[in-house]
Amino acid sequence: MKKLRAEYAEMASHGYKLNMARGVLSKAQLELTQDMLTALVTPDQCCTESGTDCRNYGLLDGIPEAKRLMADILGIQPHKVIVGGNSSLNLMYDAVARNLLFGTEDVKEPWAKQGKIKFICPVPGYDRHFAICEALGIEMINVDLLDDGPDMDAVEKLVSSDPQIKGMWCVPKYSNPTGTVYSDKVIRRIASLKPAAKDFRVFWDNAYVVHSLYGEPAKQLEILAEAEKQGNPNMIYEFASTSKISFPGSGVAVIASSPENIEEIKHRMGVQTIGHDKLNQMRHVRYFKNMDGIREHMKEHAAIIAPKFKLVTDTLKRELDGLDIARWTEPEGGYFVSLDIYIGSASRVYILMSELGVTLTPAGATFPYHLDPNDRNLRIAPTFPPIDELKIACDALCLCVRIAALERLRHHKK
Amino acid sequence: MKKLRAEYAEMASHGYKLNMARGVLSKAQLELTQDMLTALVTPDQCCTESGTDCRNYGLLDGIPEAKRLMADILGIQPHKVIVGGNSSLNLMYDAVARNLLFGTEDVKEPWAKQGKIKFICPVPGYDRHFAICEALGIEMINVDLLDDGPDMDAVEKLVSSDPQIKGMWCVPKYSNPTGTVYSDKVIRRIASLKPAAKDFRVFWDNAYVVHSLYGEPAKQLEILAEAEKQGNPNMIYEFASTSKISFPGSGVAVIASSPENIEEIKHRMGVQTIGHDKLNQMRHVRYFKNMDGIREHMKEHAAIIAPKFKLVTDTLKRELDGLDIARWTEPEGGYFVSLDIYIGSASRVYILMSELGVTLTPAGATFPYHLDPNDRNLRIAPTFPPIDELKIACDALCLCVRIAALERLRHHKK
Repeated sequence: MKKLRAEYAEMASHGYKLNMARGVLSKAQLELTQDMLTALVTPDQCCTESGTDCRNYGLLDGIPEAKRLMADILGIQPHKVIVGGNSSLNLMYDAVARNLLFGTEDVKEPWAKQGKIKFICPVPGYDRHFAICEALGIEMINVDLLDDGPDMDAVEKLVSSDPQIKGMWCVPKYSNPTGTVYSDKVIRRIASLKPAAKDFRVFWDNAYVVHSLYGEPAKQLEILAEAEKQGNPNMIYEFASTSKISFPGSGVAVIASSPENIEEIKHRMGVQTIGHDKLNQMRHVRYFKNMDGIREHMKEHAAIIAPKFKLVTDTLKRELDGLDIARWTEPEGGYFVSLDIYIGSASRVYILMSELGVTLTPAGATFPYHLDPNDRNLRIAPTFPPIDELKIACDALCLCVRIAALERLRHHKK
Repeated sequence: MKKLRAEYAEMASHGYKLNMARGVLSKAQLELTQDMLTALVTPDQCCTESGTDCRNYGLLDGIPEAKRLMADILGIQPHKVIVGGNSSLNLMYDAVARNLLFGTEDVKEPWAKQGKIKFICPVPGYDRHFAICEALGIEMINVDLLDDGPDMDAVEKLVSSDPQIKGMWCVPKYSNPTGTVYSDKVIRRIASLKPAAKDFRVFWDNAYVVHSLYGEPAKQLEILAEAEKQGNPNMIYEFASTSKISFPGSGVAVIASSPENIEEIKHRMGVQTIGHDKLNQMRHVRYFKNMDGIREHMKEHAAIIAPKFKLVTDTLKRELDGLDIARWTEPEGGYFVSLDIYIGSASRVYILMSELGVTLTPAGATFPYHLDPNDRNLRIAPTFPPIDELKIACDALCLCVRIAALERLRHHKK
C-alpha cells in the first residue's frame, strides 16, 4: 500500500486536467467531416429532389434524401422514419413526453393519467435514458444486461404481468457502457413480447448502429420488421443520429417506427414545429451520399479511436489482470468500456481520480437513480483525450482501482 | 352580379396556382443571406470566444456570441436568454408542455394536475398558438385585439378572477395577422397584471421584433424589465427567432425570461437535449455580427416585401373602398394584412379563391378552434408570391370578396 500511495502522490504532483467522462469526439474525429462545413449546400443547390427549397419552411418529416440515408443506416424503408433536429435524445424525450401527454395510437389514455408507470432499464445502461425517466416521474426497474442482451426471462415476466410497465430502454448494438451486442435470439424475444400493457413501447436507441471499431458493424435482426412479424407492429420506437458520425453538436437525428406510429407522431409533432433544419440534412446527404459513404467514413473514425480502446484494455490487463479485483468489457464498437471493480469501491475511485485531476463519469451514473447497488461499475470513455493523455489517465485509473480495493479489504478485516 | 360572375369565369379559365396562405419568405429574400451557407464557419474557426468547439457537444443555452446577438435583438441582457434550435414554435410548445408536466418555479404543481386550465387568446391571432392549446387540451378564451393591443379591461378582469387561467398569448409588435403594435400603456398593464393564478404566464411571441416595413422598427417598453419592476419577474416568457431574418427552415430561435425562470428551464431542458446546433448559431453570429448588421439586413427584406404590402392595400382600396363590405389593416411591419369582410362570407371567399387556384389561409384560422364567430376575418400573406402573381391574387381576392358579399346580401333579402 505504501508503494501505491507513493505512486499516487507522485501522480498528484503533476496537476493533471484530463477527462474520460463522456463519449465526446476528439479533435481528429471532428476534422474528418470538415468539408461538410463549407461549400456543400450552395445557393443554387438548395432544393430537394422533390423541389422543396431547404432554406424555407416545410417537410416536417425531413427531406426525402435524408429520410433515405437515415433509413439506410437503420436498414429499413424511408416511410418508417422522421428525420429530426440535431439530437436523438430530444426525440426520445419528446417520444416519452408525447405518450405521457397524449397516450399512444393503441391506448388513447395518456400515460400521465394511468397512475404510476414504470420502465424497464437494463443495467448498467445510459445515464441520460435514466434521467428522462427520473425527470418525468417514471419508476425504473433494473434488469441485468447479460452478455447477449437484457435478461429476457426477467423482462418477459415483468412485461407480461404488470400493466403499469409502459416502456423499456435498449441500446441494442455496442451498448452504453458495456459494448454488448444483443443476439438475434434476444431481439426476437423482445419483438415477440406479450405485454400486459397494450401501450407498452420499446425505446430502441440504436446510437451505435454503424460504430464498429474493427471491420464491418455487427449484423442484427431488424427490430421493426421482426416486431411486425410477431404481431407487435407499433411496439418499437427506434432512434439514431449522426452525432458520432458527423458532428456531436450539429448532426442529424432520426426516429423510426411503424407507419401507423409515424403518422401519429407527425400529427403531434406538426403542432410542435413546422420542420427541422433541412439545410443541415442536405449537408449530410451531400457529404455522405449513401451507405457506402457512411461505411467508409466510419472506418476513418475507427482508425482514430480503436487504438484508444486498445490502450485502455491493454492497460487494464497489464495492471489488473489476475488480481481478482476487476473485470472489464472489450467492446467491438461503441464509445465505452465498462469496468467492474472491487465491490463498494467505485465511488471511492471516482474521488481518487478527481483528486488526481482526471474526470470520470460519476460512479453510479450507469444505474437508475445513480444507485449502483454494488458500487462497483465505472464507465470509461476513451475517445476524447489524445492518446498520451489517455495513457496517463489509464495508469491513474488502475492505480486508484488498486488503492480503493486495498482500502476496502483493510476495512473489512477490521 | 352578372358582371362579377363573368370576371370570375374569366379568371378561372387561367388555371392559376398561387399561394397567399403563409408567412413564407420569397426566393429573393432567401437569397439575401446566401453567403451564410458557405465559408463562414471554417474548420479553424469553430471555437466560441469561451473556447468551446461548436462542432462538439455542450453549451445547452447557446454559444455566448449568439446569446449576445439574440439578447440584443430583444433589447435585453444575455443572461436572460437561451438560444435554441431552428424553431421558436418548438420553444413555445415545449414551454407549455414543460409547465403541464412539471409546473412552474412559482407553483410546483403541474398544470396538468390542476384540472381544466385556460389561456387568453387575443383575436384575431396566430393559428399555431391556438393549435398548441387545442392539442394540449387547454381551453381558449377569446379577447378582442384592439388598435393598441388586447382589450386590457377584459384581460385584467379574467386574469384577476380565475385561477384556472394560466396563460395568455401575445404577439406584441406587428401582430399576426393584424400588424398591431401594442402601446406602452398596454404593455405596462400586462406587466402589472395581478393574476389569481401564481403560475400565470404570458407567452410573449416577439416574432416580428425587427421586422418593420418602413424605417426603424417601432420602439416599445421592454416587457421583462417592466414585469420585474411591477413585481412579476417570472410572469413572462419571451420568444423570437431569425426564421424571417435568415432562413425559415434553418434560423436560430430564442426563449427569454427572468434569470430564475431561465435556470429552471435549463434544468429541465438539460434532460431533453445536450445542446442545440452551435455551428448554426455561429454562422448567424459571423454573418450578422451585431444589431447594426441585423438592422441593415432587415432594410433589405423591407425593400423586397414593402412593395408587396403596398400592392395589397392599394388593391383593396381601389376595389373595395367605399363599398362598406370590407376593412383591412395597413401594417407597418410583420408578415400579414388582416382583412375583415362582409359578415358570414369569409369561408365562402376561401372556397371561391381555392376554385380560382389561389390558396388563402383558411377562414377561421385566426381564431381558436378555427371558429371565427362572425366568419369575416381573412389573413393575407403577401410575401411569398412574386409581385406579378400577387397582383393577380389580389384582384381575385377583391372579386371574390364582392361576390361573396352580394351572395350574402341576396340571401338576406330572401
